[in-house]
Amino acid sequence: MTINQERLWNRLEELSQFGKLENGGVTRFSFTEAERKAKDKVISYMVEAGMKVTEDAVGNLIGRKEGRISNLPAVLMGSHIDSVPKGGIFDGTLGVLAGIEVVQTMNEKNIETDHPIEVIAFTDEEGSRFGFGMIGSRALAGTLNYEHLQYKDTEGITIEQAMKKAGLDPTQISKAARNPESVKAYVELHIEQGKVLENHDISIGLVSGIAGPLWTRWTLKGEAGHAGATPMNMRKDPLMAATKIMLHIEEETKKSEPAVATVGQLNVKPGGVNVIPGEVEFSLDLRDISLETRDKLEDLIQSLAYRLCQNEGIKINIETLQRVDPAPCSKEIKSVIEASLRKVGVPLLTLPSGAGHDGMQFKDFCPIGMIFVRSKDGVSHNPAEWSSKEDCGVGTSVLYETILQLANRK
Amino acid sequence: MTINQERLWNRLEELSQFGKLENGGVTRFSFTEAERKAKDKVISYMVEAGMKVTEDAVGNLIGRKEGRISNLPAVLMGSHIDSVPKGGIFDGTLGVLAGIEVVQTMNEKNIETDHPIEVIAFTDEEGSRFGFGMIGSRALAGTLNYEHLQYKDTEGITIEQAMKKAGLDPTQISKAARNPESVKAYVELHIEQGKVLENHDISIGLVSGIAGPLWTRWTLKGEAGHAGATPMNMRKDPLMAATKIMLHIEEETKKSEPAVATVGQLNVKPGGVNVIPGEVEFSLDLRDISLETRDKLEDLIQSLAYRLCQNEGIKINIETLQRVDPAPCSKEIKSVIEASLRKVGVPLLTLPSGAGHDGMQFKDFCPIGMIFVRSKDGVSHNPAEWSSKEDCGVGTSVLYETILQLANRK
Repeated sequence: MTINQERLWNRLEELSQFGKLENGGVTRFSFTEAERKAKDKVISYMVEAGMKVTEDAVGNLIGRKEGRISNLPAVLMGSHIDSVPKGGIFDGTLGVLAGIEVVQTMNEKNIETDHPIEVIAFTDEEGSRFGFGMIGSRALAGTLNYEHLQYKDTEGITIEQAMKKAGLDPTQISKAARNPESVKAYVELHIEQGKVLENHDISIGLVSGIAGPLWTRWTLKGEAGHAGATPMNMRKDPLMAATKIMLHIEEETKKSEPAVATVGQLNVKPGGVNVIPGEVEFSLDLRDISLETRDKLEDLIQSLAYRLCQNEGIKINIETLQRVDPAPCSKEIKSVIEASLRKVGVPLLTLPSGAGHDGMQFKDFCPIGMIFVRSKDGVSHNPAEWSSKEDCGVGTSVLYETILQLANRK
Repeated sequence: MTINQERLWNRLEELSQFGKLENGGVTRFSFTEAERKAKDKVISYMVEAGMKVTEDAVGNLIGRKEGRISNLPAVLMGSHIDSVPKGGIFDGTLGVLAGIEVVQTMNEKNIETDHPIEVIAFTDEEGSRFGFGMIGSRALAGTLNYEHLQYKDTEGITIEQAMKKAGLDPTQISKAARNPESVKAYVELHIEQGKVLENHDISIGLVSGIAGPLWTRWTLKGEAGHAGATPMNMRKDPLMAATKIMLHIEEETKKSEPAVATVGQLNVKPGGVNVIPGEVEFSLDLRDISLETRDKLEDLIQSLAYRLCQNEGIKINIETLQRVDPAPCSKEIKSVIEASLRKVGVPLLTLPSGAGHDGMQFKDFCPIGMIFVRSKDGVSHNPAEWSSKEDCGVGTSVLYETILQLANRK
């Protein structure tokens, strides 16, 4: 193995001490003391790897290895070291440490690249503290506004206040914005957080894109009635309309693979055993890596639903809760990752990222690429989150080959 | 019109004063002062109608008109005068007053019948006070036990205690049981509590039977997961399995008309917008007037569900909450009611009773028949409950013709 798998693994264990929980997980929120200590540790690794380290206006840690040719745009690797409450030790952290490992290996081998290489630990990707995430990557892409800093944590502390307490100047966040011309590419290694790789018995996957979630809330109103005294053909049962809509959703989404659709909440009113429902409310989470596919699917599902409800005398209302654009991965970077997988000896498996990642913020900023490492049982955001030492090592080797290629190309 | 529609209507209004609410409805629970006063009023009507009145061991009021031939079994009419909380003035009361009107009309016309005729106001049909209903009709059929008297109201008062306070002796309830040989038939006039008659623009309906509710609780367990990170074909979504089961239920029930099936409660766990459900629980209320049809339907639905869940990797559990046998109406009585409808000039419309009535308790005791009066907007158990004066009069005329026939036949 090109990279030093043991060193990577030791660092994963070392970093897991900051915000450590009794059961092996971590809770590491942004702008806290636990995060500060973890950041200082990351700085020490970056220095050890031979990088020059800076911390930008929003708290992003940036380690930089200069390129052979001056003024070429940098190849960025990155992820985050904040966690969800009671999270695992791989989510985010692995990507940051893998990036450092890639640079350290290059430096140990005295490998120089045309382009500079940077490793970034982004501030607050998860959004667990303030209900607003990807703060660092937004700042770097230049899309973080002062208004965003007014989100509050459960104790009423705003991002602005938390930044000040951490020694940062909230009025300076625009200084964290990078000129797109200074960035050639962004590549992130992350755990899959799903079971696709495990089910295929493949350690590392090529990510086709980061799916954007579209969240809608559907309200169907029919006519409540006595379960005994209302014949089947005289009913306007919104739950039966909802079941038909859900089957349409499943059917059409399966045709648009790898799009996914999920009804995770459903409430029935008034909710008596012997009362025909009068109202049903349900949520729909619709995702795809292609905005075009997702839009088409949304239109199709909604028009089927409107027609069905009209036929059945049901009133329907669809409210949009959240509409996040998907971020497809760059063709060029995907082909470089594909070649790297081949070189390392991993069979090619392409899969979308259903969960969100910092790379989403770079959709209109720079080409992005992502590499997934197999997750045990697909578990994530939980102390049971696990990826093997070998899989982490192989993933980092794929990242190494990818960065080596990208940093030496025009 | 044969009967005196105005007198019937006046008595409906008079009785509505006992337990009267501001908005025109009534709350009249069993063994209360309001009920006692209403019973005394009913006794006065029975006496006015020329009947001999008794009150049995469980508080049933029985008015009797003797027959021409001694020792023939009696033809019974009846219903109840207790109400649900905030109920209407027709539910139950109409049947009792219609029975009295039938006898009073006969006596005014000096009409004698071979068989004796009785009008019964049954104690506590609704079950609203103690969560246990049809107390009077159970007692008459001989199926009320001392244990039943231990049900409590919201203040902790048992049926037994309430009976004592009302001057009844709970140890004597078996004396309310009638010898089946003393009863020829039971016929009840009741409001429909549904919209079938209204939708067909017909004032009076012939009831085919009283549907028995079968209540089951279904639990489906699948595999919760991240809405973004789990491809459609790797899911074990119990909500999707439930939707397919509900469609089967609807489809098969429609084939078994007039059977009805209702899913009135449905809960999804864990219930996050971006979490594939891990567990779904729903209720099913299945009713038909034929036990055989209901049993077949139950078997069919459950076997379809078990097969579907097996195919989709979903664990399924079905718990029975309540299984009440249906009570089909007697063929003979139905044909007498049909002839009476013809005589009165009402087109024939046969429909099941989805709600329960005292007649259910006579399933194995005597032949039963029921006549429905059109309900405005199908509303019941509500102050807005309404049937027109004319419809009440026409229904009572049909009851009159029916009883006249039944009381003069062998």
